[in-house]
Amino acid sequence: MNIDQLIKANHSRNYFSFYNENPKSYDENQMNLGLETFQKQLNNNFYISNLSAVEFEGEEVSPYMMTGLGIHYPKINVSTLLENASSTLESWKNVSIDIKLSILQNSLECVKERFFELAFATMHTTGQSFLMSFQASGPHACDRALEVLASAYEQLNYYPKNVEWVKNFGKFDLKLQKNYKSIPKGVSLIIGCSTFPTWNSVPGIYASLITGNPVIVKPHPKAVYPIAIFVEEIRKELIKNGLSADIIQIGVDTTANPITKLLAESDIVKLIDYTGGNEFGDYIESLGKICFTEKAGINSVIIESCADFDKVAQNLAFSMSLYSGQMCTAPQNIYISKDGVKTDNGHLSYDDCIQKINDAFSQLLNNPKAASPTLGAVQNENTLNRVLNTLKNNNANVIQFDANVINEEFPDARIVKPILVELSSNQSGEFEKECFGPISFIIKTSSLEESLNLASNSAQKYGAITCLAYSIDKEIMQLIEDKMNSVYTPVSFNFVGAAFVNQHAAFSDLHVSGGNPSGNATFTTTEFINKRYTWIGNRYML
Amino acid sequence: MNIDQLIKANHSRNYFSFYNENPKSYDENQMNLGLETFQKQLNNNFYISNLSAVEFEGEEVSPYMMTGLGIHYPKINVSTLLENASSTLESWKNVSIDIKLSILQNSLECVKERFFELAFATMHTTGQSFLMSFQASGPHACDRALEVLASAYEQLNYYPKNVEWVKNFGKFDLKLQKNYKSIPKGVSLIIGCSTFPTWNSVPGIYASLITGNPVIVKPHPKAVYPIAIFVEEIRKELIKNGLSADIIQIGVDTTANPITKLLAESDIVKLIDYTGGNEFGDYIESLGKICFTEKAGINSVIIESCADFDKVAQNLAFSMSLYSGQMCTAPQNIYISKDGVKTDNGHLSYDDCIQKINDAFSQLLNNPKAASPTLGAVQNENTLNRVLNTLKNNNANVIQFDANVINEEFPDARIVKPILVELSSNQSGEFEKECFGPISFIIKTSSLEESLNLASNSAQKYGAITCLAYSIDKEIMQLIEDKMNSVYTPVSFNFVGAAFVNQHAAFSDLHVSGGNPSGNATFTTTEFINKRYTWIGNRYML
Repeated sequence: MNIDQLIKANHSRNYFSFYNENPKSYDENQMNLGLETFQKQLNNNFYISNLSAVEFEGEEVSPYMMTGLGIHYPKINVSTLLENASSTLESWKNVSIDIKLSILQNSLECVKERFFELAFATMHTTGQSFLMSFQASGPHACDRALEVLASAYEQLNYYPKNVEWVKNFGKFDLKLQKNYKSIPKGVSLIIGCSTFPTWNSVPGIYASLITGNPVIVKPHPKAVYPIAIFVEEIRKELIKNGLSADIIQIGVDTTANPITKLLAESDIVKLIDYTGGNEFGDYIESLGKICFTEKAGINSVIIESCADFDKVAQNLAFSMSLYSGQMCTAPQNIYISKDGVKTDNGHLSYDDCIQKINDAFSQLLNNPKAASPTLGAVQNENTLNRVLNTLKNNNANVIQFDANVINEEFPDARIVKPILVELSSNQSGEFEKECFGPISFIIKTSSLEESLNLASNSAQKYGAITCLAYSIDKEIMQLIEDKMNSVYTPVSFNFVGAAFVNQHAAFSDLHVSGGNPSGNATFTTTEFINKRYTWIGNRYML
Repeated sequence: MNIDQLIKANHSRNYFSFYNENPKSYDENQMNLGLETFQKQLNNNFYISNLSAVEFEGEEVSPYMMTGLGIHYPKINVSTLLENASSTLESWKNVSIDIKLSILQNSLECVKERFFELAFATMHTTGQSFLMSFQASGPHACDRALEVLASAYEQLNYYPKNVEWVKNFGKFDLKLQKNYKSIPKGVSLIIGCSTFPTWNSVPGIYASLITGNPVIVKPHPKAVYPIAIFVEEIRKELIKNGLSADIIQIGVDTTANPITKLLAESDIVKLIDYTGGNEFGDYIESLGKICFTEKAGINSVIIESCADFDKVAQNLAFSMSLYSGQMCTAPQNIYISKDGVKTDNGHLSYDDCIQKINDAFSQLLNNPKAASPTLGAVQNENTLNRVLNTLKNNNANVIQFDANVINEEFPDARIVKPILVELSSNQSGEFEKECFGPISFIIKTSSLEESLNLASNSAQKYGAITCLAYSIDKEIMQLIEDKMNSVYTPVSFNFVGAAFVNQHAAFSDLHVSGGNPSGNATFTTTEFINKRYTWIGNRYML
């Protein structure tokens, strides 16, 4: 895990991964050990090093078992969290970048030892499948952390620590000793979400820590366990290095007594990383602090032409079904012209396209080996109700699939089949809002131009994290790319087979552009790092 | 002007200058030619290439001659400025980074040919001395532009243009073609100030242009000529390259009919660079746009101990007198403990220190070769009145100097002698505000600790761009550095001789930290570049 190698990978954007995403590549007994550890944790207090709490609380529920996990976490007062964080400001600031790097890299290595426990923790809080839980919370999150560390290490060494500045004035030299320091902004608050408790929070945590800012993690009360593992492993590394464990803390709250606003509004908190819904995200952005938000977006699919529509339909069915549409990168609105779609196998009418998409969904949902692992479970009741209400209110336009999806391992799992809603382009009131979960809209437009206008206007007004487009015409691809890029939305073209728009790979894909209302920040770009400190240059007369 | 050399200089922070700051290093006849061109321009319309204006306006007044320059600039409607800028968005965005760089570098070379005209233009709008006008508006501004170009060139090449991403899935490879694009934010507004019309505006102009954003320069109505030269030379280079000259425009207004708010509030304007007072700066920051502000600050001097107080006093007298305290980097508040100052020549009482500072001022102001060139002229009546009112209201505490400063070349020049006001540390109502111009406060404190607390609190609350400190004790130096750095204020230690706190050198000193209320931005750091565009990564299935 040589830092120069990571920096190189960070710039090259070619495929790079340090942590293997394949569970089978790990020691055989790790799976059972992880499961065992997870099971032992159930109905027990979660241990956090160097923390003596009087009260414990927790309210996580497994979307698979539909029972509470019974794990309770130390309850710490907001004022204590803030005081503890403040008390570590000076000491953490003064730790050298190389030692900070080593502590943080080691913490990832320790998390690696718990990848399987982490996978079960993620699965039974988020409802992700085991494989997604393993990959997203473990190796993918750790790779994103490494990417941030590489970027930060480079940025923090952008200026030299010291330089002797010599200006010749002809008759004499003026000599000044100058130093350059990155001064951290202060206490950093990381607000987690319930669907990706580590993947979305880990970059901000590692970015704030490497730049010298103490961190308070405020996880979603329904998804604490996964990120608590990271916090604990970082604390252990800090202790090993003779530092205060409170350089990172976790502030667990409950739905009934939330503490997020108390933390966010405190003068002590200078930086906020937030993943979650728009309303709260807008509130966070309104606080006037330095913030990094990933809010909701409406992701579009534009289909103009393709080689093989069957493959397109399969790809869409999978992308929209994956984790029941609970990914921030999941497509929601599919725009197809009323004139249909050109393919290498001839022209398809609009209705042909709908039929093929339906077929692909039906096939996926009727494949018992694929259906349940693809859908995972629904993280919360609201998402389930959104589907049920849509079914109730839009009978005429809603496409339901004739399939009986069951999860044999967890018969009580909260699962629901994805639905498609057919709309025309003048029903923007229906489709120009985010419908989080397994609801997608197919929108019949008058032309490619209208499709593109709707997709780009929606991205500009309501935000978008991704756009998926199908075209075999180079000029049209360029047109789509330019138009969507102009509203700061990246485009993925002609994804079929193993390429899915949902997936953003560390060291290659940027995540959230920061240029539209889906969020003001992007993981991995230098801004994600540089806003967390201020460069100061001092000068000494020699 | 090899870009790699500039990037290297940018990182090294050692002394580097591309444009020679010594007027004598230029061809002998340049001075006369520049003066001639300047004189020919007086009472004439200023020509802007590819612009046919019906109306012209201008209200510049020379602080040396106290007469209007009579130069009139094309008057362009706000809506026309905005439409023109919008119309160039696409074409400028699509110009390659290397061609943009070449156009912008060439424009600086063309400005170089007008350095002497520029010096006279600056002198007779700002009131700076000829030498400062020459250096600040010409070579120093151009070096800062190069520094920005180097930083931007590096940042814009941070990610590769294209990469073939290959992920091995065991049985097959998934191949994606990915591209990375820096998408400009949109039209950029640069709001200039009356004292440093080019030095403070040029970095933002070049930063916005190199990152693909069309620029509208809105100069201070009393200081148009200097920056109009830059605008014109950039326009000529754009035309030479077959591009629209309106990629950069200048929108001149008058004090009676200002257009700045109309431009700033337009939806078309996405980026704002601003230099000027706090009130308008706070308004700019409140617009919710991406902005880069340099507002006012209160710069402190802390004197604890020194080798030779006479040299300290000379340095202070010069720094505070230079351009009559109209530099944003000029010291304002001098904190000295009631216990006096330790020096290598023995202990000095507080009163001894005051006496020595007075002596240094008197000596400077009574030296006819030094006084007038140091003071320059006062840019505007308000600054003059601030001095006169202070004299009127604080008789008891005000130190006036017995000297008769005259400018022999320009007997009508608006000049005023600097004044010092003695205050005690409980009179914070007097000294905790910026008094722009040649007014400085000497504040008698109870201890170094109080001096440091007052200086750091003032920086945190009201902003500071610089801090000058004198101490021969290493621990105390460290204490001062840490404390002032924690409020994001750089410290210059023990400056005597040719080192002046006012001077911030391109390729070495950062200007405005961005971390306190003196401004939210800093020239030269990557944030100054990166906020002007958004990275987008597109993916193509192969």
